[in-house]
Amino acid sequence: MANAIPERFLDILGREAKAFASLALVTKDGTPHVTPMWFDYDGEHIIFNTARRRVKDRILHRHPKVALSVQDPKNPYRYIQIRGQVVDETEEGAFDNICSLREKYWGDRNYPRREGEQRVIYRVKPEAANTMG
Amino acid sequence: MANAIPERFLDILGREAKAFASLALVTKDGTPHVTPMWFDYDGEHIIFNTARRRVKDRILHRHPKVALSVQDPKNPYRYIQIRGQVVDETEEGAFDNICSLREKYWGDRNYPRREGEQRVIYRVKPEAANTMG
Repeated sequence: MANAIPERFLDILGREAKAFASLALVTKDGTPHVTPMWFDYDGEHIIFNTARRRVKDRILHRHPKVALSVQDPKNPYRYIQIRGQVVDETEEGAFDNICSLREKYWGDRNYPRREGEQRVIYRVKPEAANTMG
Repeated sequence: MANAIPERFLDILGREAKAFASLALVTKDGTPHVTPMWFDYDGEHIIFNTARRRVKDRILHRHPKVALSVQDPKNPYRYIQIRGQVVDETEEGAFDNICSLREKYWGDRNYPRREGEQRVIYRVKPEAANTMG
């Protein structure tokens, strides 16, 4: 199957760009929810990291359909919208993964350990994309 | 009723900030949709402008519940998420309004007139907000 992400937009998903994703979810009552998120892209999945029991965790766990938009930090009129679904959810390696995300955005891996906080990795498989610019 | 927008976040909704809103909607099949948008805030409503028959117009017309997030262009770790609903939809003054939005973001009012394009204003009443930073 062809990759849903057009090749010429791969740069804004890359670690160098340090772009944020606006992650849109649908809550239990059918209303939308959106927040800026750190993310990574491994060439196949968009990877998010949240903490157990947060709103995002509760929604993603139950309703795997997501959309995200990413603007080019150098040109906000160039952006991609990706729709897809969660295909994997795991606590394994999740603290190491949030440290890796921190390294992407902040340049160090010193993400604070918080008592009782369990990180979770969600992997989203892109199914469709629209681009502008 | 108290305003849903905390006063100390009014600056990033203002015209000077030139911030974009990530507007999240829910499509007919219950999946989320999100795009970066120009917006204005008049102290009471978040104002969006789209064109008739576009995806956003078709969704907003039918499903008035929306969410939007706005990051501070000077500090992406400072942001607001607003949830609310469309309380007004009008074609009246909509071309003038998109020229005003262009003035906010680009400094001139020369939004191109496109043959057969009817602009539409959607006014969203904020009902709840979450902030970070």
